[in-house]
Amino acid sequence: MLNRSVLKFGGSSVSDFTKIKNIANMLKDRVEQDEQLIVVVSAMGKTTDQLMENVSSLTSTPKEQELALLLTTGEQQTVSYLSMVLNDIGVSAKAMTGYQAGIKTIGHHLKSKIAEINPSTFTDAFEQHDVLVIAGFQGINENHELTTLGRGGSDTTAVALAASNNIPCEIYTDVDGVYATDPRILSHAKRLEYVSYEEMMEMSAVGAGVLETRSVELAKNYNIPLYLGRTLSNVKGTWIMSRSDLLEKKAVTGVALDKHMMHVTITYPLPDNRLLTQLFTELEEGSVNVDMISQIVNHEGLQLSFSIKDSDVHQISQILEQLAVNFEALDYKINEAYVKISLIGSGMRDMSGVASKAFITLINAKIPFYQTTTSEISISYVIDAENGEKAVEELYGAFDI
Amino acid sequence: MLNRSVLKFGGSSVSDFTKIKNIANMLKDRVEQDEQLIVVVSAMGKTTDQLMENVSSLTSTPKEQELALLLTTGEQQTVSYLSMVLNDIGVSAKAMTGYQAGIKTIGHHLKSKIAEINPSTFTDAFEQHDVLVIAGFQGINENHELTTLGRGGSDTTAVALAASNNIPCEIYTDVDGVYATDPRILSHAKRLEYVSYEEMMEMSAVGAGVLETRSVELAKNYNIPLYLGRTLSNVKGTWIMSRSDLLEKKAVTGVALDKHMMHVTITYPLPDNRLLTQLFTELEEGSVNVDMISQIVNHEGLQLSFSIKDSDVHQISQILEQLAVNFEALDYKINEAYVKISLIGSGMRDMSGVASKAFITLINAKIPFYQTTTSEISISYVIDAENGEKAVEELYGAFDI
Repeated sequence: MLNRSVLKFGGSSVSDFTKIKNIANMLKDRVEQDEQLIVVVSAMGKTTDQLMENVSSLTSTPKEQELALLLTTGEQQTVSYLSMVLNDIGVSAKAMTGYQAGIKTIGHHLKSKIAEINPSTFTDAFEQHDVLVIAGFQGINENHELTTLGRGGSDTTAVALAASNNIPCEIYTDVDGVYATDPRILSHAKRLEYVSYEEMMEMSAVGAGVLETRSVELAKNYNIPLYLGRTLSNVKGTWIMSRSDLLEKKAVTGVALDKHMMHVTITYPLPDNRLLTQLFTELEEGSVNVDMISQIVNHEGLQLSFSIKDSDVHQISQILEQLAVNFEALDYKINEAYVKISLIGSGMRDMSGVASKAFITLINAKIPFYQTTTSEISISYVIDAENGEKAVEELYGAFDI
Repeated sequence: MLNRSVLKFGGSSVSDFTKIKNIANMLKDRVEQDEQLIVVVSAMGKTTDQLMENVSSLTSTPKEQELALLLTTGEQQTVSYLSMVLNDIGVSAKAMTGYQAGIKTIGHHLKSKIAEINPSTFTDAFEQHDVLVIAGFQGINENHELTTLGRGGSDTTAVALAASNNIPCEIYTDVDGVYATDPRILSHAKRLEYVSYEEMMEMSAVGAGVLETRSVELAKNYNIPLYLGRTLSNVKGTWIMSRSDLLEKKAVTGVALDKHMMHVTITYPLPDNRLLTQLFTELEEGSVNVDMISQIVNHEGLQLSFSIKDSDVHQISQILEQLAVNFEALDYKINEAYVKISLIGSGMRDMSGVASKAFITLINAKIPFYQTTTSEISISYVIDAENGEKAVEELYGAFDI
């Protein structure tokens, strides 16, 4: 069998016909090196925005089913164009929509999840073609209706196709790969050659990821090597793979700064389960996602701290106001001037002393921290927003990244 | 069961969002009169041209399969928009692509024919929706590839859906209906309220039809009443139906002038079957469609006349030149200064004297004719192009049209 891979190109990589031609030439080179490729593409550049603009001139409440049907035309056009160019330059290619590729979805029309892919579609098609160009971001549901996937859906399409065919997946985008920390904060930040699935997921979770957690998780579950790099660039990107496949295991692989969080502290003179029950019920009902949680109960009563996304500020205010009506002695504080800094590394679980070293680094740098949480492969600190970039620099320097 | 019909709107009827909204309101009125509708739409205005322009910037030889896949997005967008607007104004509508509507095709990707439609798709969908908006001009073939139909394909989609559901079909376009003769030639030409399938097919065949022969033939085979009229107009259009359903039967229903023809005459000093065999074989191989044929064999030898479309001029010249090389005594003449005038009427077969009256009319008007052919419901004369409009006027006046 020839070497097979999935390659995915996002909307900005196929935003004009010149880019599409350049990608076709690159694919041709790979086919000439005895490869067979599944290529997943998004809608060209601003196509989806243009379609949405048309819709808003027609109705402010489009039916989701019709909206999905409309939006899927964007990727259908890209696959047609790319496949035409490939055939034109002598590469035997076949274009397919999501449903033609057998991508079955479940759930909400515009935020569907992939339920099933039939790999035999590809086995058959590869007998006649070297490149199969598949429309990303879309599928068909059990009612035979076209659907689009949620955020990051084209990446998910690519990873799911790789998983069902048990082949590697390369995601091409407009970044060079995964960095040990944000190069906009630390210009000498190292680009990682390898990173484990778990590390990548932690990075995504703290907002430092260029890939949605869902795609990385899917790759991890099927143990599919995932590459992330810049479209048509000679710069080597980053391979995301199983930790056991990584040769060099470091305690800390990356430092991530999450600026989009806010911090809530609640104090109440006595422990009261009714209060906590009501709070967490309402957070859940309001889809407010709670990240770090610390609770202290002592003779002064209950103190609870947690962090949430800063986009939930309106909802959390309403919830806490109502809570203060029901529990008169309640005192609460919402602080938006905090950020979260995280150290991430799969090696952390095997190596002791990371937490201590990080504490000492922050103390020596005179950076106060207000909350700390640890997972098996990460340590996070809530600090003042003004100290964010300094903390990145200090921690990056303290560990051998 | 509620009254059901198929309505079809062509590209110029849905060329902007205002038109789409107006059509939606018209459909709403009909649904409020207890109707359920299947609505077939084409791609908006110049969409298909725009897509073809994009393709030509990529390749001069696009693969047909990819081209079909691309072009089908045009209608898919129209059905999405129209269905959104319908739902927005309170009409329960569902949009479907050709393959979702179960339209299976055979043949060439860009000139497919409808092989099969499953009417149960509609029976089920009408339980939940009052309007089903279907993408015209497209289907899916046995290899699960998207296809487009040939010329007039959206009309064919509409008639085929009407046939499979056994309901009437209304075709909306930018003409008011079928006229007894071209109103650009005769300003007082009558618009026909009814016309038989056969008459309509004759009219299409002589180039006077606004509908492709294929659609009319399909309606005839399934005995589906077909309406042709102007989009969003109060002017009554024309119903095309079975002759036996027509109350008033006239000898002549219409006069059609075909300017897009040319006339070939061949003379050869002796009857020679090899000559005729070679000629007709090459005409068939070159896809040159022969219309009127007359042959006379007498003591002077063989004389053969036939008419073909003027677009075949290049091909016929080549064929005849080659023939003259093989048969030295051959003499031929291609005359492009002729037109064909036809009288059409289902009643002709029951009423005698139509041919005589037409002959006398032309002779009295001093209009020479060079060839005559008759079918059961039509008589055609080849005349000089300069006499075309005068002949229309004379014949229209001579018969009670």
